[in-house]
Amino acid sequence: MDGEVKRLHVTQNSFLLKGDICYSKNREEIVTKENHYLVCEDGKSKGIFPEIPQKYMSLPLHNYEGCLIIPGLVDLHVHAPQFSFRGMGMDMELLDWLNTCAFPEEAKYGEHSYAEKAYGMFAEEMKHSATARACVFASIHVDGTKILMELLEKTGVIAYVGKVNMDRNAPEYLCEAGAGKSIEDTRRWLEQTKNRFGNIKPILTPRFIPSCTDELMQGLHEIQEEQQLPVQSHLSENLSEVSWVKELCPWAGSYAEAYNRHKMFGGEGCPTVMAHCVYNEKEEIQLMKQQGVFIAHCPQSNMNLSSGIAPVRKYLEAGIRVGLGSDIAGGSSISIFRAMTDAIQVSKLRWRLCDDSLAPLKMEEAFYMGTKGGGAFFGEVGSFEQGYEFDAIILDDRTVPYPQSLTLKERLERMIYLSDGRQMIGKYVAGRCMKGI
Amino acid sequence: MDGEVKRLHVTQNSFLLKGDICYSKNREEIVTKENHYLVCEDGKSKGIFPEIPQKYMSLPLHNYEGCLIIPGLVDLHVHAPQFSFRGMGMDMELLDWLNTCAFPEEAKYGEHSYAEKAYGMFAEEMKHSATARACVFASIHVDGTKILMELLEKTGVIAYVGKVNMDRNAPEYLCEAGAGKSIEDTRRWLEQTKNRFGNIKPILTPRFIPSCTDELMQGLHEIQEEQQLPVQSHLSENLSEVSWVKELCPWAGSYAEAYNRHKMFGGEGCPTVMAHCVYNEKEEIQLMKQQGVFIAHCPQSNMNLSSGIAPVRKYLEAGIRVGLGSDIAGGSSISIFRAMTDAIQVSKLRWRLCDDSLAPLKMEEAFYMGTKGGGAFFGEVGSFEQGYEFDAIILDDRTVPYPQSLTLKERLERMIYLSDGRQMIGKYVAGRCMKGI
Repeated sequence: MDGEVKRLHVTQNSFLLKGDICYSKNREEIVTKENHYLVCEDGKSKGIFPEIPQKYMSLPLHNYEGCLIIPGLVDLHVHAPQFSFRGMGMDMELLDWLNTCAFPEEAKYGEHSYAEKAYGMFAEEMKHSATARACVFASIHVDGTKILMELLEKTGVIAYVGKVNMDRNAPEYLCEAGAGKSIEDTRRWLEQTKNRFGNIKPILTPRFIPSCTDELMQGLHEIQEEQQLPVQSHLSENLSEVSWVKELCPWAGSYAEAYNRHKMFGGEGCPTVMAHCVYNEKEEIQLMKQQGVFIAHCPQSNMNLSSGIAPVRKYLEAGIRVGLGSDIAGGSSISIFRAMTDAIQVSKLRWRLCDDSLAPLKMEEAFYMGTKGGGAFFGEVGSFEQGYEFDAIILDDRTVPYPQSLTLKERLERMIYLSDGRQMIGKYVAGRCMKGI
Repeated sequence: MDGEVKRLHVTQNSFLLKGDICYSKNREEIVTKENHYLVCEDGKSKGIFPEIPQKYMSLPLHNYEGCLIIPGLVDLHVHAPQFSFRGMGMDMELLDWLNTCAFPEEAKYGEHSYAEKAYGMFAEEMKHSATARACVFASIHVDGTKILMELLEKTGVIAYVGKVNMDRNAPEYLCEAGAGKSIEDTRRWLEQTKNRFGNIKPILTPRFIPSCTDELMQGLHEIQEEQQLPVQSHLSENLSEVSWVKELCPWAGSYAEAYNRHKMFGGEGCPTVMAHCVYNEKEEIQLMKQQGVFIAHCPQSNMNLSSGIAPVRKYLEAGIRVGLGSDIAGGSSISIFRAMTDAIQVSKLRWRLCDDSLAPLKMEEAFYMGTKGGGAFFGEVGSFEQGYEFDAIILDDRTVPYPQSLTLKERLERMIYLSDGRQMIGKYVAGRCMKGI
């Protein structure tokens, strides 16, 4: 052993993985390295090597020869209290579905025992999914949201979790009693959870413009500015919703402007992710680009709720940062692999049926959005390039047998389309190996 | 025991199932019976009862209390030699994809050992899927097709399998040497497999008009008439294909007419299933109705290959018989549950983006198409009504936990959206219990 080895910062989070490694370099290019070594030092990637470099010889080796090693997936939009009824009530449109399915179920999370039971199921599923990072909506309930944070913390997944704010246009049983109460609850939630978790951080979560008064938005902005918290919400999901926002905010030139007026729409110190963006106007695209707002593209939800198909290529070409969201329970599947293939499939339909100026998304682009694209909301996440936080999942694709020989890239495409959870045999988040996967 | 019991035709294929039973009565109505008994006598359904009728007391009981019992699913369109590359090469349109992916792979099935290995994987997957019946394309190879039939026979699934005919517009390595040779091979295949199988029957399979000369179609028609065989092919999948057929058959008023001129398009004694039908014209719909031609709707394939969205409601309303197809490998998933949800999802997009005169498909309709709708191609199949052949699958939906109480219909919808093969704990085809599921 030479001097270099001694200088290694060897911790529990330093090790080597061996296997068939794939990651997105950019949205057009996937790097593939067969039978290589991937180095994790102190929770960060140190790169990929054909042989173990001398410097890393002393690190423990986790041998996944013959398996795929890819970055952990990123879910930029998921509603935890809707997990319980995913795949049900799917024959409705957004606003009906909210009133019939989503709101009555979310109301139950005011009850401690129900929240614990149902969020426990959600957390268990997140743990066993290929998702390493997520932006999660809870409900309006402070205690319920805390329970969700505690349960998720134990899984090892890294997530932003938001107590939802809504003080208008919601059924009485799920409407906060005025902006003052909503803000007070939000401050209490933030106070009570401050520095309590390692993996779980708070995110401000006005549900969407129709359910938040200007006073509430103003109060949230003040909290945002004081505590420099990120923001998540919904934007232009459905045509009826877009018209409704126009009625509710005649002073706003656009739906995006309704958030931006309250300084809850990206910009310096206010990382923001907006779900859907099916119907953004030109000025909104411009504003999102300018303010660095992320889009959580949720193709399955946009199908299930008959919303439409977001023009994702337009956003990518405009330089907007786009990731993928399962949008449970608008989306039925929690799998971000599924979101990748849904994104490709609906982009093909949009090209065929609506607008052949926007070419369909390619596998490389969908994989990028589900890893590095969405990962950027969490920092240097979603890739194995040097310095990236070390999120990885291991897929044993031999369990879905094939008769021919395949390239590594073909094996990756195949897993994106076919993997169903049974192939994942290992998961690492920020360099920590998750047990019991 | 009374006299009635003695008259029971008790065979291995007579038994009772107990559980939570669902089946389609018609395309609008799903019958649900919680904790009931379903009687199978000599391979046929004798109905559903809250208590075991005296008459059936002596039959063995298979107890699936707490589980869903639904009819076996029906896949009206699947290409066995494409199974090996499902989920790959998905960034192409139909005609490119055929030349780049499908044809080179299909050519391999001329080799005995490859066919055995690759078809073995397909048969294994069919066995463990929820599919009880299927219409299967093989390749042009007589021996390969026989291997496929042998392997499928062992699974217990009931299927029509077709040796593919193609004598033009195919790469040399996959083009039969003239109509004469194609017909000769087809006759040889039929002769060699005649009465050899219990579950597997032959079906005439001209690939599609672009790859079959008039002479070949005429020869196939003669075989059809002699042997009263059913027919499967493709119709109006893709716009380029539709234009191509217009060029190839200037004498035909429509694509459907190109089949019908050769009497290979339904009618008395010629049961026919046509895959896709994305772009059927009015006269074609009329003709399909008149001749009782089945449509195999393949929504996932139509997305993957950027084909479009078939106007399924229009066909249903016209009284055409519609089932679902996985269309492996245009479709990536072999699951007919997935085909059901895909059918619903794309119908919503079609409604939103193209034509709001056709309401989206409902869960009831998708379930109907994937069971009784497609099942009708096999006779009285796909339901538990009295007299229906007894195909059933058992789903233990408790393995996908939920915190609330649900109706049986909600549990069914949930399984349609969420089941991934891990929930199926039993499968019966024509009254035979399939082992090792």
